[in-house]
Amino acid sequence: MKVQAGSLVSGLPPRPRAGEVTETLCEQPGVRIERIVSTGQVTPDGQWYDQDSDEWVLVVKGSARLRIDGEAQDRELGEGDYMFLPAHCRHRVAWTQSEPPTVWLAIHIFTKC
Amino acid sequence: MKVQAGSLVSGLPPRPRAGEVTETLCEQPGVRIERIVSTGQVTPDGQWYDQDSDEWVLVVKGSARLRIDGEAQDRELGEGDYMFLPAHCRHRVAWTQSEPPTVWLAIHIFTKC
Repeated sequence: MKVQAGSLVSGLPPRPRAGEVTETLCEQPGVRIERIVSTGQVTPDGQWYDQDSDEWVLVVKGSARLRIDGEAQDRELGEGDYMFLPAHCRHRVAWTQSEPPTVWLAIHIFTKC
Repeated sequence: MKVQAGSLVSGLPPRPRAGEVTETLCEQPGVRIERIVSTGQVTPDGQWYDQDSDEWVLVVKGSARLRIDGEAQDRELGEGDYMFLPAHCRHRVAWTQSEPPTVWLAIHIFTKC
């Protein structure tokens, strides 16, 4: 394996974008690190993410609101805010800033070694 | 497990700081996610990190220079720049911005499932 380097905040996908753009930055057994660029996309009404793996997310640029199932209101996420979402913690993206885009770092953790 | 949330860029450790301050944000089997706050610290002359685990690092705030063993010059890292350092890739921190502090996100990947 070799050193790999890049930038989360440059080389954003060109416009117009039909949807969120997810790029895998690093994939190792049990872990996948992604950059996700959102431009206003939200989880469709009535739908929830319900994942088999743990996820740790960070808002690198922009801002967003997440709703955790069972909570009374959205959680606000600004630059530098992170959240750990354990597997099967139902959640939805309620809002994302579109301009400038919202850049997420997402770490999916599959390890049950 | 429960949802956990926080900010990488607020709640920085109080000054003065004797050295780097490392906080574990998330620890799961095979993965540890840390915030590291550097205020000018570097790896001592002639020393190298030589880790058994892979590491993925991101400069969240500030800037730094890393030297990879065998390379002719330092690599510059600014805000949003990331680097994947495979296990046993010898490297050293050549410089870190002290004011404002340099905030790193470090993901240590131990998984060899």
